[in-house]
Amino acid sequence: MNGWVLAIDVGGTKLAAARVRGDGSLDRRRQRPTRSGVTADELWADLLALVDDVTDGDAPPAVGVGCGGPMQWPEGLVSPLNIAAWRGYPLRQRLKDRFATADVVVHNDAVAMALGEHRFGAGRDSAAFLGVVVSTGVGGGLVIDGRLVSGRTGNAGHFGHVVVDAAGPPCRCGGNGCVEAIARGPALVTWALEQGWQPRDDEDVDGRALVAAARRGDDVALASLTRGGHALGVALASVAAVMDLDTVAIGGGVANAGELLLGPVQAAYHRHARLDFTRGCRIVPAALGDDAGLVGAAALVLPSPRGGAD
Amino acid sequence: MNGWVLAIDVGGTKLAAARVRGDGSLDRRRQRPTRSGVTADELWADLLALVDDVTDGDAPPAVGVGCGGPMQWPEGLVSPLNIAAWRGYPLRQRLKDRFATADVVVHNDAVAMALGEHRFGAGRDSAAFLGVVVSTGVGGGLVIDGRLVSGRTGNAGHFGHVVVDAAGPPCRCGGNGCVEAIARGPALVTWALEQGWQPRDDEDVDGRALVAAARRGDDVALASLTRGGHALGVALASVAAVMDLDTVAIGGGVANAGELLLGPVQAAYHRHARLDFTRGCRIVPAALGDDAGLVGAAALVLPSPRGGAD
Repeated sequence: MNGWVLAIDVGGTKLAAARVRGDGSLDRRRQRPTRSGVTADELWADLLALVDDVTDGDAPPAVGVGCGGPMQWPEGLVSPLNIAAWRGYPLRQRLKDRFATADVVVHNDAVAMALGEHRFGAGRDSAAFLGVVVSTGVGGGLVIDGRLVSGRTGNAGHFGHVVVDAAGPPCRCGGNGCVEAIARGPALVTWALEQGWQPRDDEDVDGRALVAAARRGDDVALASLTRGGHALGVALASVAAVMDLDTVAIGGGVANAGELLLGPVQAAYHRHARLDFTRGCRIVPAALGDDAGLVGAAALVLPSPRGGAD
Repeated sequence: MNGWVLAIDVGGTKLAAARVRGDGSLDRRRQRPTRSGVTADELWADLLALVDDVTDGDAPPAVGVGCGGPMQWPEGLVSPLNIAAWRGYPLRQRLKDRFATADVVVHNDAVAMALGEHRFGAGRDSAAFLGVVVSTGVGGGLVIDGRLVSGRTGNAGHFGHVVVDAAGPPCRCGGNGCVEAIARGPALVTWALEQGWQPRDDEDVDGRALVAAARRGDDVALASLTRGGHALGVALASVAAVMDLDTVAIGGGVANAGELLLGPVQAAYHRHARLDFTRGCRIVPAALGDDAGLVGAAALVLPSPRGGAD
């Protein structure tokens, strides 16, 4: 280890990379938009240019990548829902070819964020931690006894598909009433529009605008966040019972609503989590903000004080 | 190890004990009713007489105990819901005093059953296993990568408190719409009676009679099992998404309904578990029958081929 690892965050909106030190701090952070309408190779060239700028000729000892799912894990054949150019794209192998001496780990971006929050953010002292991302989708990752829980196929942590209302709205997964179908940003927006929310002319019609409207006191926007928070809180009560959680951290764009989302989450959680051991679980905001994806990607390959991710 | 361990199963209906060999087979199995209206010491004397009959002067190298919850774990101070005599009763210490040279492990009875099914029953080849008990309550236990998941406070696996209907019936835990509140035997009976089920004069009004009525084709009894099975299937879809399960085994008295319960469980599961990795999870009947409690208790202290329970 020469003091840093290369961290890469591949999302539908942007590609980001940085050097991340052992204490979680970032150096040479770079990002660029994720181009649409390009080929798989063109997108790879974009990422490679970004990465070469960050590494600047130095060989990283390890490379950690958070990428939108689904993917074949641990092979790192990625098919991000929001990146049409990559379907079964061998991202891990490409990076191994580029950095022949480095360990390369590719994992789900929500799993990476959860690991980052556990190591460097809101989950630092947790023995049983769930990190949740509420954004275009709802994702998550579990860190139990200091170890990342990957699951048999690398898909453990799919918190977004906890069912909160079996007769609820259809979900992208093909099921009904998943917490994601109710609480993801676009679902909050759709519901608010149906209830008569009128976005301002100078704003996009998206989750960011909805949060802004709620901050201004718009009743429908507030009700939409409350509804989403309720679904999240119910789903958290279920996971806390099964996993004996002590801490949940909630991040992602929708979580920028702060107390307007977190308050309803906590209220619903405590209405349903009534066993002694579930009552004590803390539900807190994620702490790493915009850098969570990169810090989490780095955490996939940084040596763990407690024995490392598995 | 001299070839066997002492297994003890403490339930609200009966106390049971046996010698269990390394292959999960039982020897000198004994049981007696759990007396009510006795003192803590009298109940301990009952258990001790049973245990002394089983050990017959031989010193067990290890003692595994499955006991109804809740309890302080791993200290083994037990307060079984259905055994009023024991509140904070130091069961583990009593057994350590009695068998000074033995390891003694006390765990939740549903957790023990899940571990037993994983080691010797329906979960034998599973890398991510949930064992579920549907009886007076609904309980469960998780075995991931060959290791029992105990959780921070020993309470991991509380499957019965996965919420399947946030506006659903009140649960014993104080919440609403837990799968236990809908699918436990007494809840199935209550619902059936409300819908007009008329038990036969020669039968008790309990889950056993309800299952018997369903087998005879009673429409209301069948509908009650279907309703319970639906709740279980929805809850399983949630846990499978978060834990990337490959196998679920369902046991307990209500599961004696066989396909009449399992069919609706599977149907509801597959309606909701639509992600590639959740579709493949098998939901099967538990295999160990009435001995599951004792085999599971033994599994708590038998050396594991994969490194042991944690």
